[in-house]
Amino acid sequence: MRILGIDPGSRITGYGLISKEGNRLIHIDNGAIFTQSAMDFPQRLQQIFVGLSAVISQYQPDAVAVESVFLAKNAQSALKLGQARGAAIVAAVHVGLAVFEYTALQVKQAVVGSGRAEKVQVQQMIKALLHLPEVAQEDASDALAVAICHAHSAGMNKLLKG
Amino acid sequence: MRILGIDPGSRITGYGLISKEGNRLIHIDNGAIFTQSAMDFPQRLQQIFVGLSAVISQYQPDAVAVESVFLAKNAQSALKLGQARGAAIVAAVHVGLAVFEYTALQVKQAVVGSGRAEKVQVQQMIKALLHLPEVAQEDASDALAVAICHAHSAGMNKLLKG
Repeated sequence: MRILGIDPGSRITGYGLISKEGNRLIHIDNGAIFTQSAMDFPQRLQQIFVGLSAVISQYQPDAVAVESVFLAKNAQSALKLGQARGAAIVAAVHVGLAVFEYTALQVKQAVVGSGRAEKVQVQQMIKALLHLPEVAQEDASDALAVAICHAHSAGMNKLLKG
Repeated sequence: MRILGIDPGSRITGYGLISKEGNRLIHIDNGAIFTQSAMDFPQRLQQIFVGLSAVISQYQPDAVAVESVFLAKNAQSALKLGQARGAAIVAAVHVGLAVFEYTALQVKQAVVGSGRAEKVQVQQMIKALLHLPEVAQEDASDALAVAICHAHSAGMNKLLKG
C-alpha cells in the first residue's frame, strides 16, 4: 500500500510517500512545494494543486493522510491555511483518493511512541525508520510522519470529517 | 465580458454570472451548490470544485470575482471557510481564469451606492439592476453582487492577494 502524507501550507506544502509492505515501511520520495510569495494568492493555490497532482500522478498512492488542524494562531492565518488545505485536498479527492486525518498527538505516538515528543525527535525518528540519508526538510518530514501514522493505524482509520 | 461571481462556503457556495455589454449588465445565470453535510469534508470540497468547474465550462466566463474575508467568527470557522474558498479558487485558476477580490464595502458601494446598505437592500437592488423575476437565493445574490462590483470597477481591479 502506497501512502501519500501531505502537510499543506500557503508558503510551503510538504509531501512524503511511503510504501507499506507487510510490517515494513519503505521510503519512496519526499519533498516540498514552495509557492512564490511574489505571486497572487490564487496562483499559489494553483501551484499547490498542480504540484500535488503531479506527485499523485507520478506515484499513484492508494491513500492520502493529513494532520488535522486544531490550533491556528488567528482567524486570518486559519483562512490562509484553510485555502492551501482546500487546494491540497481537492488535488487528492479529485482523482478518487480517500483522505484520512490524524491529530498531532496520534502522529507523534505513531512515530516516536510518545505524544510529548519534540519536533527534532520526530524528525530523527523518521530518518531512522525510513533509512533516510539525512533529516528531511521540515514540512516534508511532517508529511512523512502523518503517512507513517496512517500506515500504523490501518483498521482504525478515521476518515477526515469537517 | 462575462463575469462569474462566487460566494464560497463549506455548506453553500453561491455563484452568479453576468455579462457586461457597454454600460449594460445582463444576468446570465445564478445558483448555489449545496454540499451534503452527511458527506466527508473532502468530498464536500470536491463537490464545490466539480460544481464550479461545470459552471465555468458551461458559461466560459472571462473573469472571476470573490468577496474578501476579513471577519471570520473564529479560527475553526475560518479554517472551514478557507478550505471551501481554496477549492473554489482552484476551480477558476486551474482553467486559467484570473480571480479578483473586493471588500464587502466595495461590493455594497458598487451595488447600492452606500457602504452602509443592509443585506436586504443589496438583494433588492440586484433584483432591480439585473431584472430578476425575484430575489435570488442569498448566497447566489451575494455572488451576483461581487460580479457587479467587478463589472463596475474595470480599470481599478485589484487582483486577489494573500
